Amino acid sequence: MTTTARPGDRRRPHVPRDPVEDHTLRMAQARREVLAEHTGVVPRHVTGHTFDPAVLKGNIENFIGVAQVPIGLAGPLRVNGEHARGDFLVPLATTEGTLVASYNRGMRLLTESGGVTTTVVEESMQRGPVFSFADARQARDFGGWVEEHFEDIRRAAEATTRHGRLLGIGQYQVGPLRYLRFNYATGDAAGQNLTGRATRAACEWIRTACPGGPAYLLSGNVDTDKKHSQINTLLTRGRRVVAEAVLDRHALRELMGVEAAELYRWRQVTMTGAALAGAAGNGAHAANGLAALFIATGQDVADVAESHASFSYTRLLDSGDYYWSITLPALIVATRGGGTGLPTQRECLELLGCLGDGKAGRLAEICAATVLAGEVSLAAAVVGDDWVDAHERLGRNRA
Amino acid sequence: MTTTARPGDRRRPHVPRDPVEDHTLRMAQARREVLAEHTGVVPRHVTGHTFDPAVLKGNIENFIGVAQVPIGLAGPLRVNGEHARGDFLVPLATTEGTLVASYNRGMRLLTESGGVTTTVVEESMQRGPVFSFADARQARDFGGWVEEHFEDIRRAAEATTRHGRLLGIGQYQVGPLRYLRFNYATGDAAGQNLTGRATRAACEWIRTACPGGPAYLLSGNVDTDKKHSQINTLLTRGRRVVAEAVLDRHALRELMGVEAAELYRWRQVTMTGAALAGAAGNGAHAANGLAALFIATGQDVADVAESHASFSYTRLLDSGDYYWSITLPALIVATRGGGTGLPTQRECLELLGCLGDGKAGRLAEICAATVLAGEVSLAAAVVGDDWVDAHERLGRNRA
Amino acid sequence: MTTTARPGDRRRPHVPRDPVEDHTLRMAQARREVLAEHTGVVPRHVTGHTFDPAVLKGNIENFIGVAQVPIGLAGPLRVNGEHARGDFLVPLATTEGTLVASYNRGMRLLTESGGVTTTVVEESMQRGPVFSFADARQARDFGGWVEEHFEDIRRAAEATTRHGRLLGIGQYQVGPLRYLRFNYATGDAAGQNLTGRATRAACEWIRTACPGGPAYLLSGNVDTDKKHSQINTLLTRGRRVVAEAVLDRHALRELMGVEAAELYRWRQVTMTGAALAGAAGNGAHAANGLAALFIATGQDVADVAESHASFSYTRLLDSGDYYWSITLPALIVATRGGGTGLPTQRECLELLGCLGDGKAGRLAEICAATVLAGEVSLAAAVVGDDWVDAHERLGRNRA
Amino acid sequence: MTTTARPGDRRRPHVPRDPVEDHTLRMAQARREVLAEHTGVVPRHVTGHTFDPAVLKGNIENFIGVAQVPIGLAGPLRVNGEHARGDFLVPLATTEGTLVASYNRGMRLLTESGGVTTTVVEESMQRGPVFSFADARQARDFGGWVEEHFEDIRRAAEATTRHGRLLGIGQYQVGPLRYLRFNYATGDAAGQNLTGRATRAACEWIRTACPGGPAYLLSGNVDTDKKHSQINTLLTRGRRVVAEAVLDRHALRELMGVEAAELYRWRQVTMTGAALAGAAGNGAHAANGLAALFIATGQDVADVAESHASFSYTRLLDSGDYYWSITLPALIVATRGGGTGLPTQRECLELLGCLGDGKAGRLAEICAATVLAGEVSLAAAVVGDDWVDAHERLGRNRA
Repeated sequence: MTTTARPGDRRRPHVPRDPVEDHTLRMAQARREVLAEHTGVVPRHVTGHTFDPAVLKGNIENFIGVAQVPIGLAGPLRVNGEHARGDFLVPLATTEGTLVASYNRGMRLLTESGGVTTTVVEESMQRGPVFSFADARQARDFGGWVEEHFEDIRRAAEATTRHGRLLGIGQYQVGPLRYLRFNYATGDAAGQNLTGRATRAACEWIRTACPGGPAYLLSGNVDTDKKHSQINTLLTRGRRVVAEAVLDRHALRELMGVEAAELYRWRQVTMTGAALAGAAGNGAHAANGLAALFIATGQDVADVAESHASFSYTRLLDSGDYYWSITLPALIVATRGGGTGLPTQRECLELLGCLGDGKAGRLAEICAATVLAGEVSLAAAVVGDDWVDAHERLGRNRA
Repeated sequence: MTTTARPGDRRRPHVPRDPVEDHTLRMAQARREVLAEHTGVVPRHVTGHTFDPAVLKGNIENFIGVAQVPIGLAGPLRVNGEHARGDFLVPLATTEGTLVASYNRGMRLLTESGGVTTTVVEESMQRGPVFSFADARQARDFGGWVEEHFEDIRRAAEATTRHGRLLGIGQYQVGPLRYLRFNYATGDAAGQNLTGRATRAACEWIRTACPGGPAYLLSGNVDTDKKHSQINTLLTRGRRVVAEAVLDRHALRELMGVEAAELYRWRQVTMTGAALAGAAGNGAHAANGLAALFIATGQDVADVAESHASFSYTRLLDSGDYYWSITLPALIVATRGGGTGLPTQRECLELLGCLGDGKAGRLAEICAATVLAGEVSLAAAVVGDDWVDAHERLGRNRA
Repeated sequence: MTTTARPGDRRRPHVPRDPVEDHTLRMAQARREVLAEHTGVVPRHVTGHTFDPAVLKGNIENFIGVAQVPIGLAGPLRVNGEHARGDFLVPLATTEGTLVASYNRGMRLLTESGGVTTTVVEESMQRGPVFSFADARQARDFGGWVEEHFEDIRRAAEATTRHGRLLGIGQYQVGPLRYLRFNYATGDAAGQNLTGRATRAACEWIRTACPGGPAYLLSGNVDTDKKHSQINTLLTRGRRVVAEAVLDRHALRELMGVEAAELYRWRQVTMTGAALAGAAGNGAHAANGLAALFIATGQDVADVAESHASFSYTRLLDSGDYYWSITLPALIVATRGGGTGLPTQRECLELLGCLGDGKAGRLAEICAATVLAGEVSLAAAVVGDDWVDAHERLGRNRA
Repeated sequence: MTTTARPGDRRRPHVPRDPVEDHTLRMAQARREVLAEHTGVVPRHVTGHTFDPAVLKGNIENFIGVAQVPIGLAGPLRVNGEHARGDFLVPLATTEGTLVASYNRGMRLLTESGGVTTTVVEESMQRGPVFSFADARQARDFGGWVEEHFEDIRRAAEATTRHGRLLGIGQYQVGPLRYLRFNYATGDAAGQNLTGRATRAACEWIRTACPGGPAYLLSGNVDTDKKHSQINTLLTRGRRVVAEAVLDRHALRELMGVEAAELYRWRQVTMTGAALAGAAGNGAHAANGLAALFIATGQDVADVAESHASFSYTRLLDSGDYYWSITLPALIVATRGGGTGLPTQRECLELLGCLGDGKAGRLAEICAATVLAGEVSLAAAVVGDDWVDAHERLGRNRA
């Protein structure tokens, strides 16, 4: 037990590293021994990885084993996208009972209604340095200088990257501080590292070229990385994706036990609740589907923070059918880099046809379509009063 | 490839289920065969779980295998909490290079500075139904009725749960809608299901007992579940935890290469950036550490959406040392229920001494202390201009 | 012209004051002479007040004259409130053409539809001190101490006021800081001064009685005074008032040229726009009517900042009529104190039957009903495409 | 008393209008007679205007008289701006005791510290129509069409205005809705009407020229007019102005009784409070000074809703002096149009040298400098514990 250690304890454990052979079974074992000595725990499942730790170089430090997160299969989900077309079986890695079943139910309704239309509306990834001046006028004039020298700045930034392209620079001033928001296209990479590197190079060029050599911080928090924010909602981070469908009113009634008009009637109510609460969006639970897809496919799971913002917009059609759209303004996905090349993660990308170049848009569309399935299913469960019962049937009787 | 399927394709794949023997190797295999037929992909790593699928009952539906997420070990991290005391080795499950190394660096500084003091300030989990009336006056009067009948409501709610306790009901009105926010203590469970069940029972009791039998929706979006929100920041969701430390200025300089005064100088700048952006907090990247800990220990990873909100507050002390606190107003963790009992997840909880009853507060404190380590490390890297270089050294050369 | 003054100019103007006879014609004249000498401007209209400056004691310092703001009369507006009942003629002080006409049009529709039902849902005014500690645990424990000593704190606060009553204290913690939000009932006064005085007395009592004598600041910005905020929206500041009406669909068509269904169809669109923008509410322009009423009736006009937050919630009824509610969560009005006793302001309060004790609720209801008239009128103008034309007919051809 | 009127009362009052001679003493008198008959109130002060109602054409409808709002003189305030230079005496129209004295105190400190540097950083006024489509893809493609046809759109918009210039169009999409934000330079006018007219013309051109003739609403709430919003804070509405000064630490101590270091120490505390509360900014009370200046100078007072957002950013200098900046991201002022030409309002503009063409920037700078005076004064009063006492001395003993 760690509690046996006391502040001041001189035999503080030391986690061993090896400058050359760090990603090896030997080092993993050496670390687990330290762990066992320090805590008395000898893990038996964490060690159960099916791959050579060498593949993990660039993905993890101080490797000791793996978390095994169960994957459930939802679908088929029919997607009529520009990048994703067809009936998809979606791997969801989660430990929350009911989740897969609920998304599955939504997918069935969507597919029976003709599928989900998906559209990537916009795309950009950010790094947001801030430049600091003696006064506001210098900061403002610096803004003009940046505009004039955009081509040079772009060159300096893009010299550091093969796939990144600097699209533009937003500028926001408070007092003597000039916050810049560098917007990049990053292809199939999520792009946080790429944009960090490129923006640092750009800032260094600016510091040298700009009279006065202004001080800067590479992130002034308007990026906004690993955090939900209104600026992301407005100006996109990662990809802005819409998934939309026309729910067949008969299917709604038969599969979900709810009326389209009833769903529509509650829309203003839940939108108002979201506004009252100051919520990240008026969607219901995008985070559920996204976290499960992110873990399965090797995404940066911390980006659930940004990606979970979602906005529903619906219409009750004259036909009695129900149009439902979900917009994800800050969906961050990648099909290269990060965890996308690791063994199980790569397999899940393959299952979705998202392996290889030019597939990030496809993955983004599948994510959005999946989120829509979850929104539809949960709303129907809440309105049809099946929510709690479903958890009783499928979840753990916990407490 | 899924793209071979066409809208209208009659041989749409069917994911098999079995009402009785669903969590078996046989069913997992049967599903993977459907998958192989539909996509041409035969997964070899996803199948590499070290446990019998029977253990997954209540955690997943349509099981096909596992995601293997690498775990790195950070620490030791000295924690001087009320629930967690000692030097901890923290398992972080992530696929993002540099993350473990960065947290590790922060932990070293914190530990050398005497450790992190952690405090659970408040605790409650919510379900937020909305009651709808013909007009505002009825809604207001209903609010009074709820206050008068609180004891009855509490009884109805608590009758459905062993561990849940109804602490109070917040009330928020817009027009003829009365939004209630049921606040529960949920012990070691995260409590989303518990509170759903209890609140439904309470609402049903209300509907029967209250003249007029008002209509309600079990969630009106002020809970706010799986979403960041200002109401969570203000009124807590899960646990409100503070981690704080006094960073030794010598250690800061030697280990991080930055001066305390320099860190302090940039504080207003990053706080202002966060305010401009309308960010979920003014912390830097709590989501990184939390997502990694959540995956490792079987938390509901989607709750990164709520939990990632964080607020730094710092002081430059007369001694020249640097006081730094991080506050997580909506940290949702559990040591029972959800994925906490699964094989690798349980092992990671054991490593932290968080297995068994009464350990959720301890886990919450470790989470907050870990987040502080990440904040300190990243801030020092940004201010000391080591951020990009660290990613170059440790991350993948991606793009 | 002031521009003739140069930095360093030794003959910097001095605005005279008189410790005893400050609110006199003589002193006003003396100040205008300084003004004339400094700027060359001799005002002829500003001097045109109809009252003795002596009445202004407690309302203004350095008096030189008056702004004459034209008042237009809108109405009759039928209000079916709990405090306000009848057909009201509403004085609106504004310089913006079209405003009175537009509100008037809305009032006609509302009145022809049977009038506006108004309800004061909640009431409280705040002062929000913050107490600062060495660490979070002390801050948390202080929170418990405050709860235990609430009665003493209440007594200390209420000893300073005849009309104020301390309803409760909200508590919000970040790091070692404990933000308190004192909530008061303030009767017919807006209460900012009352609550300041009472809370200071309470804080001084706390500082003496509480071990350690914690440092505090009388406002830590969670009040939130003279600023819009989400906490006001959630927890009310001043009065939370709802105005609602069922718009007759025939009247809508004839008077406004729009269909109820058409108005309803655009609701999600404008709610979504407000959410995207991160707006203070999803209403259209409450600030217009409120500013005009506030100036006319001697309210603290700066409170438009808090009061303008508004939320519409609507229903398309089966009858084809249109239910519309507006909620003002932070409406700050007074019928005593501030400018309410000044000559023209008092007359306008009289016109509304809001002079004398116990009338603040009545004024609040009239304000909310007026806001509803403006919302209805503007929405109909925008949807019916009469917005720009109305301004062309009634406004100045400005630019 | 209006309460004598009963719902259903057939003799509902009628406010008379005259299509030709509406702005006359005769009509004002006729309306007051209706008022007297309906309410029993014969106003004596409201009638005390010093001008012919004919001057009010375009500013008010249904004129009955004036509100007399007392004006106090604050200053001199030394401003070192680009548009405003010199020592200004600032007319503040308010009924709140202490306000003028407090701003005056701040102005003295600022002036003794060498004055306020002011900078207009950015400028634009908006109208935000929304276009609605059948699906998201059409909406996205429409966005491209708008970019391609920007020159035509600009021409259509600018054809309706002499002073307005279309600077650019922001685009924000949710589902099948495309929200546009037309940004204009509007010279000395506030520009809400100008931008409404121009944008309607542009939208009509779009509807005709764009295949499919998309439906639109002239405001979809991303403008955001008469409402605080995060989009205004980020992207400016009206003028983005900074006022900054270096407060002499000796003057701070002597005039205010506070230490610079003490002020600085509390900065993170009040910024954190603002973030907790979800406030419109982290400034203290910009609304006070702005409302008073707006009433005095004939601004659209409802724009306090947008204009009151303010952000302080400060630095404790090595010299011990205190740098303080305030940023107003959405300051809406005009020196033509609206109430700026009315008798007392025009005189107040004259006092500030803000009459005539090209003076809106000057007025904006004076507003920002005034706000800074108020921030400094209030912060010093709160930190120095003189806040309540000042109100006791100068305000009404109200409650």
